[in-house]
Amino acid sequence: VSGLRAGVVVTGTEVLTGIIGDKNGPWLSERLREVGIDHAFTTVVGDRPSDVRAALDFMAAAGVDLIITSGGLGPTADDLTAEVVGEFLGRPMELDEGLEARIATILARLTRRWPNVDQEAIRAGNRKQAIIPAGATVLEPVGTAPGLVVPPAAAGSGLPLVMVLPGPPRELQPMWGAALETELMRALLEGQEAYETRIVRMMGIPESDLASTLRAIEEEDGLSLSGLEITTCLRRGEIEIATTFVPSVAESLYVDFEAALDRRYGEVIFARRGETIDEIVAGLLRDGGLTIATGESCTGGLLAARLTELPGSSSYALGGVVAYSNEAKSALLEVDPGFFPSVGAVSEEVARALAEGARSRFGASVGVGITGIAGPDGGTPDKPVGTVCIAVAGPSDARLERRLQIPGDRASVRERSATIALHLVRRLLLGPPVA
Amino acid sequence: VSGLRAGVVVTGTEVLTGIIGDKNGPWLSERLREVGIDHAFTTVVGDRPSDVRAALDFMAAAGVDLIITSGGLGPTADDLTAEVVGEFLGRPMELDEGLEARIATILARLTRRWPNVDQEAIRAGNRKQAIIPAGATVLEPVGTAPGLVVPPAAAGSGLPLVMVLPGPPRELQPMWGAALETELMRALLEGQEAYETRIVRMMGIPESDLASTLRAIEEEDGLSLSGLEITTCLRRGEIEIATTFVPSVAESLYVDFEAALDRRYGEVIFARRGETIDEIVAGLLRDGGLTIATGESCTGGLLAARLTELPGSSSYALGGVVAYSNEAKSALLEVDPGFFPSVGAVSEEVARALAEGARSRFGASVGVGITGIAGPDGGTPDKPVGTVCIAVAGPSDARLERRLQIPGDRASVRERSATIALHLVRRLLLGPPVA
Repeated sequence: VSGLRAGVVVTGTEVLTGIIGDKNGPWLSERLREVGIDHAFTTVVGDRPSDVRAALDFMAAAGVDLIITSGGLGPTADDLTAEVVGEFLGRPMELDEGLEARIATILARLTRRWPNVDQEAIRAGNRKQAIIPAGATVLEPVGTAPGLVVPPAAAGSGLPLVMVLPGPPRELQPMWGAALETELMRALLEGQEAYETRIVRMMGIPESDLASTLRAIEEEDGLSLSGLEITTCLRRGEIEIATTFVPSVAESLYVDFEAALDRRYGEVIFARRGETIDEIVAGLLRDGGLTIATGESCTGGLLAARLTELPGSSSYALGGVVAYSNEAKSALLEVDPGFFPSVGAVSEEVARALAEGARSRFGASVGVGITGIAGPDGGTPDKPVGTVCIAVAGPSDARLERRLQIPGDRASVRERSATIALHLVRRLLLGPPVA
Repeated sequence: VSGLRAGVVVTGTEVLTGIIGDKNGPWLSERLREVGIDHAFTTVVGDRPSDVRAALDFMAAAGVDLIITSGGLGPTADDLTAEVVGEFLGRPMELDEGLEARIATILARLTRRWPNVDQEAIRAGNRKQAIIPAGATVLEPVGTAPGLVVPPAAAGSGLPLVMVLPGPPRELQPMWGAALETELMRALLEGQEAYETRIVRMMGIPESDLASTLRAIEEEDGLSLSGLEITTCLRRGEIEIATTFVPSVAESLYVDFEAALDRRYGEVIFARRGETIDEIVAGLLRDGGLTIATGESCTGGLLAARLTELPGSSSYALGGVVAYSNEAKSALLEVDPGFFPSVGAVSEEVARALAEGARSRFGASVGVGITGIAGPDGGTPDKPVGTVCIAVAGPSDARLERRLQIPGDRASVRERSATIALHLVRRLLLGPPVA
């Protein structure tokens, strides 16, 4: 895997200090891979211009062909990315009057709701956002900030092309397509072959096992995997194998690799093209004309929230009940009150009753019940923190249930429980064993 | 704010590409602030040694006093951080036999469970992890990888001190305390005063307004804010103002600054010490001996999940109903079926009925109802995507409701709706106007 390399510079003290997480670095990483550019670095810097400049100099010294910046394009005086990039590439700043007018139109619409807003401050900010490096290609604003594609002033300077994008992901993401359409990006990408990344997901094996399997595939099957860039990681109890390769060179090698994985792990592989378990369950419900409802205790609505996250989910997700208290479990989901003194609220019996209750109250094809102890309090020697019972009921007479001991803190126990519940739904709808 | 500066180098292709998020950069950022070191950069690089080296060279060129690396300390051949750091600082690698023996003891204990493990591979990995830059101070392993504190070989070289830590947060975090205890870190930190960061949050003003307010505070109130490092950001509709300062120098300046903010924004400030709206609502419910229940349509359980996220929430969060379909709204939360043909499912009337229904079905002091169009489909000219109605009912006769137009995609509309619902609960319980 060789060719063009890129670096990403994310600006913003609130990202550096972790007040908000960086979504742009990972998102841009995927986009770069799609167009065949190797993502070498992401550097997060605060809002100091000298630090932003140091990051640009670093990427240039490391020999990248493209730098993408995100953030620092706002209307206030401390938003200085465009100016720093202009200086870096040897281009003076100049006012783009057409752009100023277009931003003014956007601002007039946005500020209509706030009649008392400081109009002078708005005008100053508007003008500032229209002052750009001479010779830059403008990417029209999605919010109020324009993006830029800026070439070095001197040909043969060895400096990279710089793409300047706004910080908010909802502004940055729609601008990427426009950036690719610019002549500067087209020229850069000419002749590049896009990489392909395939993602296989499996459930229920330890990660260490996978490491020795990769060795075994090379030794026993005689496959040299060096033409593939393979990354494995463990997430929420699922193992993810991401493989990147140049299709014209390594497509058949990848097919052999996936077949080798299949021979060893066929039963636990649930996704071969990057689908999430959420998407798989949504597809099974939609394609089967089925509906689903939930009865949740310890997960407190997380499963319902995941089932309703995808667009169009209202066609199969009917709803759910979050019942923390035993009274609510009985009143809303018809759980037999006799269970609580006998088997306890955290039991296969109650999980099953929650699933059946959700199914019947919502008139759904499939019901899911989850009850457990997410911690940090509430554990007992019999049922320590992390004890979770999950049941799936329907369609028709199909039933599945599990009693689990999930490691980790409250957030992990809740998240893993919801994930495992989705795997059980998949298993019930598909038939073959999964975990 | 001046003094020592540090850079963080996070290694790992799976972090760079976003397969796993970087937890170490933000965590180390907080720790650095606590000991009075200014965090200047975080650079994420893949596992290529030349890229790791380029990141170290960059930080050194930018003049940092300390570099912290995370990751690349494992037993396999591609874990090369210690070697790259040794080369960077001019220190040859050497085997630490005592360390080799201590790691062997840990490995013997860990691999007892796997009798078929490849013992030769284990021994090779063990030895590799004990080969360290000559003159480095060892931080004892938490997992199997030792950490290191490595000074430059040549005094006066201008190179920074390097702290080498493992990648997994559960190994990195416990090692931080041991690293601070080393003589090398003590010498670096001598005479440093810890910074303080205070976070103020407000709701319901545009960010541009805040920018001009900061100017006004300097001009009208005559406060010179240069002794404070002020970062503002907009998150989920809330504005966050994070201010970092050296207490011995700027404590009274900060007090004046907060008072100036209070005079202008007292009504919309809801947090003065970094509390989230989730924590504030939890505190109000707990302190008031109140309980809460939810009736959600478009948010699909997100509000219930947030109300049950904090440990101990079972004492006040009774549960909720997620009702996507109109039938479920009527069957489970007693919403008058006559509303749907007359005012529509997305209406103040239905939000109020969901809130009242949740309150009565769960016997809660407070009920919250949310109904809206999260998109991307389902919008009409009258009720476009983003139209959301939220109602809060109780305690006793208190009632509040809002009809909102929330910008952004499906995920934003859902998240913002849940956030605004929490603000309405706070407003209802506290009395004074918030938004």
